[in-house]
Amino acid sequence: MQLPGRPGAARERFAALFNPQSIAVAGASASQVNAGNRFIRLLHQWNYSGDIYAIHPKAETIEGVPAFRSLGETPHPVDYAYVTIPAAHVTELIAAARGRVAFAQVMASSTPSDLFAWERDLRVAAKSAGVRLIGPNCMGTHSPRGGYTFMEGALLEPGDIGVAAQSGGLGMDILRRGQSTGLRFSGLVTLGNSIDVTPVDMLDYYLDDPETRAIGLYIEDVKDGGGFRALLDANAGAKPVVLLVGGLTKLGGAAAASHTGAMTGGSRAWEALARQTGAILTFTLDDFLETLQACAWLTPKPTTPESGIVLFGNGGGTSVLASDAVARAGFNLASMPPAALAEIAELRLPPGASVANPIDLPASVLRENQGRIAGDILEIVRQHTKPHAIIAHLNLPVIMGYRHIENFMPNLIEALLKSASGSGTTPHLVLALRSDGSEEVDAWRRTFRSAATARGVPCYDELPQAVSALSRFQGYESFIAGRLATSYSDARSRHDA
Amino acid sequence: MQLPGRPGAARERFAALFNPQSIAVAGASASQVNAGNRFIRLLHQWNYSGDIYAIHPKAETIEGVPAFRSLGETPHPVDYAYVTIPAAHVTELIAAARGRVAFAQVMASSTPSDLFAWERDLRVAAKSAGVRLIGPNCMGTHSPRGGYTFMEGALLEPGDIGVAAQSGGLGMDILRRGQSTGLRFSGLVTLGNSIDVTPVDMLDYYLDDPETRAIGLYIEDVKDGGGFRALLDANAGAKPVVLLVGGLTKLGGAAAASHTGAMTGGSRAWEALARQTGAILTFTLDDFLETLQACAWLTPKPTTPESGIVLFGNGGGTSVLASDAVARAGFNLASMPPAALAEIAELRLPPGASVANPIDLPASVLRENQGRIAGDILEIVRQHTKPHAIIAHLNLPVIMGYRHIENFMPNLIEALLKSASGSGTTPHLVLALRSDGSEEVDAWRRTFRSAATARGVPCYDELPQAVSALSRFQGYESFIAGRLATSYSDARSRHDA
Repeated sequence: MQLPGRPGAARERFAALFNPQSIAVAGASASQVNAGNRFIRLLHQWNYSGDIYAIHPKAETIEGVPAFRSLGETPHPVDYAYVTIPAAHVTELIAAARGRVAFAQVMASSTPSDLFAWERDLRVAAKSAGVRLIGPNCMGTHSPRGGYTFMEGALLEPGDIGVAAQSGGLGMDILRRGQSTGLRFSGLVTLGNSIDVTPVDMLDYYLDDPETRAIGLYIEDVKDGGGFRALLDANAGAKPVVLLVGGLTKLGGAAAASHTGAMTGGSRAWEALARQTGAILTFTLDDFLETLQACAWLTPKPTTPESGIVLFGNGGGTSVLASDAVARAGFNLASMPPAALAEIAELRLPPGASVANPIDLPASVLRENQGRIAGDILEIVRQHTKPHAIIAHLNLPVIMGYRHIENFMPNLIEALLKSASGSGTTPHLVLALRSDGSEEVDAWRRTFRSAATARGVPCYDELPQAVSALSRFQGYESFIAGRLATSYSDARSRHDA
Repeated sequence: MQLPGRPGAARERFAALFNPQSIAVAGASASQVNAGNRFIRLLHQWNYSGDIYAIHPKAETIEGVPAFRSLGETPHPVDYAYVTIPAAHVTELIAAARGRVAFAQVMASSTPSDLFAWERDLRVAAKSAGVRLIGPNCMGTHSPRGGYTFMEGALLEPGDIGVAAQSGGLGMDILRRGQSTGLRFSGLVTLGNSIDVTPVDMLDYYLDDPETRAIGLYIEDVKDGGGFRALLDANAGAKPVVLLVGGLTKLGGAAAASHTGAMTGGSRAWEALARQTGAILTFTLDDFLETLQACAWLTPKPTTPESGIVLFGNGGGTSVLASDAVARAGFNLASMPPAALAEIAELRLPPGASVANPIDLPASVLRENQGRIAGDILEIVRQHTKPHAIIAHLNLPVIMGYRHIENFMPNLIEALLKSASGSGTTPHLVLALRSDGSEEVDAWRRTFRSAATARGVPCYDELPQAVSALSRFQGYESFIAGRLATSYSDARSRHDA
């Protein structure tokens, strides 16, 4: 994307960060194992294919990597420098880059009393040395396409979620929990205090990056509200953008000022921005990750849904509470025409089945036809109701209670997945795989969730989460639908004129 | 508790259900293993000490238990009959009880078209046979004091949470998940369609029962709104009552009508009831269980909190979002006087600590003094701020990242527990033990959660849940505070008159 005052495509401007040909590490120790050493070990572990340089005042090699005195003295220019030296020495290190370093990410932060002057000097040094500075006060960058990550345990499997976070710790939480729920990333950059590279830059990059399908940003201070807004306007909902904004209350704002020196905006400004640009606003980490799952895997339907939701699963009281959640989120339940009920009656389900929507089937019914009965029912329902979405909830301890007789979960999951594919209008499918919190059931859930997310189906722990993620995604879909309607009426009025 | 028209104390009227001297099982098979057989096996597994009778048209013994032709022919009267025979035979079975059965719980339900007539006949039969009927359309009763349960995998460890649920499935979810989070029950009764014994009866019992400290009810149709209200009024907040109400939306109400034939009330009526009686209203299973944890373990402070919350843990962005959650819940953060900051400065914490509230300490600081530093800091904070509550959040993957060097979590947890005990005004302590969703970290969380809940500290998965459970509990505390203020001013005006 190209905006006034931003030369070149963002994709090219940040190519060296996301796909560096050389990485320098300043701060690894010749005698101990610190964060710098661990980063070099991670580069080796993942067989990073570019050059690696250590920057060290005395050592010849560190972790098997050649060491040089300064960022200006490496054999080749540096695409990305990972800097973990103490705050007092950072400015000097950056100043010595002499135009030979594209990006430097600075983890340290100064003491609160010196922070303003320290950041000012650092900004000046970076600018005169031609370095784009990431941080300070952050944790690193995760770039599967570049073959590197800052986090032990992170997977380098490439994905299509682009993330930037003005908090290193939250960045790691997003990476870790995202992985556990099946999200894979096109990149994740921790931005810390963002004195040079800002959330606006990262939004710019991910919007421009063909490998990124959905964008997630944790923001305390966007730094350039106008630029941020202009990018979201230009995006016009083409890619979903999920915002987790911290510090919007008085208490949170004070905490954010102490955390990253942020000047946060007001809640209303953010709500207006979201409404006007189609960005999805969240305030908790869980909501953020749950919404990203929907954005990662659901294909937006740029039409206002005329039909409703189909609730399918086991549990009578659970179906009642889920119906309430559906209603509170502003959705409708798809109404079942008599013809659909008649066709379902022909399936001659065992007693206990309640097939008006919500479709509530005890596990003893769900196991019919080795778990494939769900497919037969949903095929009828889908033909007759053309639902906006199917929310399927499975109470795993109950269903897996049959495992000694027959484990019908794999067939059941398969039947559900089929219900959201094929020709014609495809409903969204989201799952709520309900556990009892025991080790055994949680392990089953991990397995079934992997199977579902590998097929592009968002999986939630409980129904309210499934409903609210779907509802946030629907807000985004409505925005697109509104845009299309506007374009159409614009075109019409031009035609009529 | 004794209300007009309800003879005798509820405790005595339901003693036979919660502590039966004899149990009859109708529906166990002489040739297969069905729900009735599994129930008898559970009675044996838990060494139920009373008499057990099977009711069967032909068999002499079932599962090693003597069988009799009808409920009227057992050697001794029956305190509790567990009935799993098909709907068509239930009325006849109950009619044969001839005043010799105190409680019968009926699991079956009739087909929708016959339901009205079937329930009417069943009610008449129960009444004329002198049986109090529980159900139909339910799952059973869990009574640790009575030495029996309906659910495989349930623990019979006695507890002090009394539950009744108008949904068998949700009753099982409450039992299973409650167990996983450390809740133990004084009883749990699934009420199904509640054609005789209603949520009002169960509320009456648990209010009257000295073993029950907090009460949780899942309600679709309270059956007797006036009686329910009168009990809550008489309770006057003495025991916390948490309500999970389903079917309050149009969609949910329709689902509830199909589920248990419920006639649900409106949202506003329930909100008014909660406000006027101090009952705590929830709409999701998670909220219900999370609030019950607070009610189980926190001692209500019947004064309006003048001071605020202390947020303590690791994670800068997490602290910002938690501060926002605290503010949105209507709480304040306790402000730290300069004297407190000066005393903390004397601890000479390593760099990275942010000790203004929110107190945000990286794991590298938390591990000081083998994890005991938290105790030193919180002792100072507590003396100076006298907080309403301490919310401690620990990001387990980060903290346990140090486990190869030193596992300081046990000392850290111990220090946190100490911070909420001792003399003087004790703050509430709640924990958020944050996982990354991996098997390893979830297993650690289970261990640490058990340690905390065994000491009476509510443990949540994330900060928003901790804040909202505390907030709901505070609503209950405010109600008590208001009641006390009223009593005081009543007393004063009587004195002045």
